[in-house]
Amino acid sequence: MRQIGVQELEQLAVGAAILGTGGGGDPFIGLMMARQAIEAAVPVTLLDISEIDDEALVIPTAMMGAPTVMVEKIPEGGEPVRALQALERRLGRKATATCPIECGGVNSQIPFVVAARLGLPIVDADGMGRAFPELQMETFHVYGISGTPAVVADERGATALFETPDNYQLEWLARGVTIRMGGHACLADYPMSGAALKRTAVPGTLSMAMAIGTAVREARHQGITPIEALCNATRPFVYGQGIVLFQGKVADVQRRTQNGFAVGRATLSGLGENAGQTMVIAFQNENLVAFRENEVMATVPDLICVVDSESATAVTTERLQYGQRVTVVGIPTPEKMRSEAALQVWGPRAFGYDIDFVPLERRFPSYYQQHGVPPEKAHYLKS
Amino acid sequence: MRQIGVQELEQLAVGAAILGTGGGGDPFIGLMMARQAIEAAVPVTLLDISEIDDEALVIPTAMMGAPTVMVEKIPEGGEPVRALQALERRLGRKATATCPIECGGVNSQIPFVVAARLGLPIVDADGMGRAFPELQMETFHVYGISGTPAVVADERGATALFETPDNYQLEWLARGVTIRMGGHACLADYPMSGAALKRTAVPGTLSMAMAIGTAVREARHQGITPIEALCNATRPFVYGQGIVLFQGKVADVQRRTQNGFAVGRATLSGLGENAGQTMVIAFQNENLVAFRENEVMATVPDLICVVDSESATAVTTERLQYGQRVTVVGIPTPEKMRSEAALQVWGPRAFGYDIDFVPLERRFPSYYQQHGVPPEKAHYLKS
Repeated sequence: MRQIGVQELEQLAVGAAILGTGGGGDPFIGLMMARQAIEAAVPVTLLDISEIDDEALVIPTAMMGAPTVMVEKIPEGGEPVRALQALERRLGRKATATCPIECGGVNSQIPFVVAARLGLPIVDADGMGRAFPELQMETFHVYGISGTPAVVADERGATALFETPDNYQLEWLARGVTIRMGGHACLADYPMSGAALKRTAVPGTLSMAMAIGTAVREARHQGITPIEALCNATRPFVYGQGIVLFQGKVADVQRRTQNGFAVGRATLSGLGENAGQTMVIAFQNENLVAFRENEVMATVPDLICVVDSESATAVTTERLQYGQRVTVVGIPTPEKMRSEAALQVWGPRAFGYDIDFVPLERRFPSYYQQHGVPPEKAHYLKS
Repeated sequence: MRQIGVQELEQLAVGAAILGTGGGGDPFIGLMMARQAIEAAVPVTLLDISEIDDEALVIPTAMMGAPTVMVEKIPEGGEPVRALQALERRLGRKATATCPIECGGVNSQIPFVVAARLGLPIVDADGMGRAFPELQMETFHVYGISGTPAVVADERGATALFETPDNYQLEWLARGVTIRMGGHACLADYPMSGAALKRTAVPGTLSMAMAIGTAVREARHQGITPIEALCNATRPFVYGQGIVLFQGKVADVQRRTQNGFAVGRATLSGLGENAGQTMVIAFQNENLVAFRENEVMATVPDLICVVDSESATAVTTERLQYGQRVTVVGIPTPEKMRSEAALQVWGPRAFGYDIDFVPLERRFPSYYQQHGVPPEKAHYLKS
C-alpha cells in the first residue's frame, strides 16, 4: 500500500506513455484530469494486488475510442465516475476498488480520476501490462472473466449498459456507441472479485510505469542516457530488459481514423548504427509490427515503443512528425501475455498479419544471454 | 376489454400494414411471431386506454431497424421479452401492461408476442397512430415522456440499456447499436405510468387497425371496392375519412439502406383518372411526401398509404415492384399529431423537406365538406 500524489502521477504519465506503444491515448490528458481530481481531494491509495480481499468487488475503469479524437475533445472527468456508478447500481453493490484495464497511455490515469473523486483505492495491476485497442484484448478475457455487465458513459450524461454473451460482442457494440458518442467515451467493465483479479491480472504494472517514468527523467543524474535507463527500467519486473530495435528519424506517417481506430503505418529512416536502413511500424491505435528492411523485428504482444531519441519520452502515433529523431525500443511482454489462448486474442494474426509471434528473447538470444531474463523466462536462455 | 386471438391478429396485420405507410416493417413477420406465441398460450387481453390504472407501469415494446433487413433476418421472438425484462430489472418493478410505440407495421404485433409470452395485457393505444422511422417520433416524446431507461436486445442474448438526457440521443445511440446488432433489434422504451399514457398516447389505434383489416377483407361482401372500404374505415375514428390521391403503376423504385434506414423514392405512372400523370413518393422507411407533377399532394404526419389497387392490401416499400398496380390513399392524422410541438418532430422539415405541413382536410376542402370530419376537426370545414 502506498499513497499516490501528483508527483507519482507525473512519473506514471511518462512511463504509461511509453507502455502505450504509440497508442493508448495521451496520458497527459489523463494526468490533467487525475491531477485536478487529486488536488481537489486527497492522495489515492495504491494497493498491491496481494492486499485486495478475495471477496472484494473490483470495477476497472477506462476510456475507449480513437486517441486522435481524444486530443481534440478532452473529457470533463465525470464520465468514468458515472460509468462505475451505473455499474454499481446494476450489480447492487459498491465497488471496493478500481484498477486500470490497461496501464499504457491515458488509461493508466483514468482510475485515479475515479479513485480521487469517490475515495476508492486502486489496485496495482491491469489487464494487459501495456495498451491494446479492443476490449476483449485483456488477460481478464483470456482467463475467463466476463466483460459485462459493462457501462459506457459520455460527457453529456448518457450511459449505455451492455450485457453480452461474449466479450467480442461487447467490444463490437460498445465501439459502435463510442463512435456515436463522438469518437471516445468512458467505460467501466470486467467487474470481478479480488480473487478473480489475482488470478487473471498482470500485477505491479502501475508501479513499473512509475519506475520507468522516474528512470527516464533521472537518467542524466545517473550518468546514463534516458534510452539506456528505459531499457534497464523494466528489467526487475516480470517483463525483463528492453532492447533498442532501431534509431532513426520519421520519414512518413500514414494515418486514418477507421471504425473508431487510428490505423496506419510510420516509416523511419535509419541514423547511427541504422544509417541507410528503413523501419516500418504498422499500428492500430498501438504499434503492432516493426519491420526492418521487410524483416520482422518485433510484434505484438511484445511492446514496440517509439520514443524521442534524446529524452526517451514516448511519441504517440498522433504526435509523430516528419524529421523527428526517434528510437524504437522493444520490451518483452510478461509470460501471462504469451499463452496460446492469449496469442489468439492479440498475437499478430488477431490483427490480420500472417506472422507467428516470436518473443524478443528468441529473436535476440545473444542480447538476452548477456542481460539475463526474469526467472519465469529462464527457458528462453536454453537453446 | 376484449380478448385477441389469431383471427384478430390477422385483421390487425392487414390494417397495420396500411398504417405502416410503406414502412414499419412487414407486419406479417410480426404476425407469424405473435400467432406462434398466442397459439402456445392463451388469448391476449386488449385494454381500452380508460381501463388502465393511473398508477400502472406500462412498458411499450417494439422492433427497430431497417425493414429491408427484417425480411431477411426474422426475429426469434425472445428479443422483445428480454428487452422488457431488462427494463423491469432496472426499474425494480414488473410491468402492468405493454403497448405498441407504433401501431403501423410489424410494431403492431410485437407487443402481442410479449403479452402472450408473459401473460400481460396490451393497451389499445400507441405513440403515433401510424409508423415513423425514429424513436423520438412519438407523441410520448412530444408530450414530455423520457424514452429512457430503454433497452435494445438482439437474438443472441445481448442487451444494451440506455439512459440519456434526451430522446434524440436515445435514437442516435440505440440506432448505432441496432446497426451493429445486424440491422434490426427489439426494444423496450418510454416506460411510463397509466396516467402518462392516457395524457400522451393516440388512443384506440389497435382497434382501428383491426377495423381497417376487416373492412378491406370484407369489402366485396358489402358491394364496395376494397379501396372504398379503406377510405371509409378510418371515418369513425379520430382520423377521419381517407382519400384517393393517385392511381397508377410502379414505374421506378430507388432504394438504399443508409444509416440503418431504407431511404429512397418510388415513381408511379398514372392510370384511369390519373392517366398521363406521375406521382413521386419520397420515403425514409415510411412514405414522407407525395408529389403529383411536382405539386405536393400530402406530407407527413398525414398518412400516405400505397396499396394494391385490387385488394387494398398494403405494399411496403421493400415489396414495391415494377409494373405493380397501386393506389395511393391519404389518411388525415389525428389532431394530437398536428400540434406545433408535434410538427417540429415529424413535420416535413424534420425530414429535410422545405415544405409546410398542410392537412389533407385543407388540401381537399370540397372532399371533406362532402364526407365530414371528426368533431375535433370541425374547424377545417370553416373556410
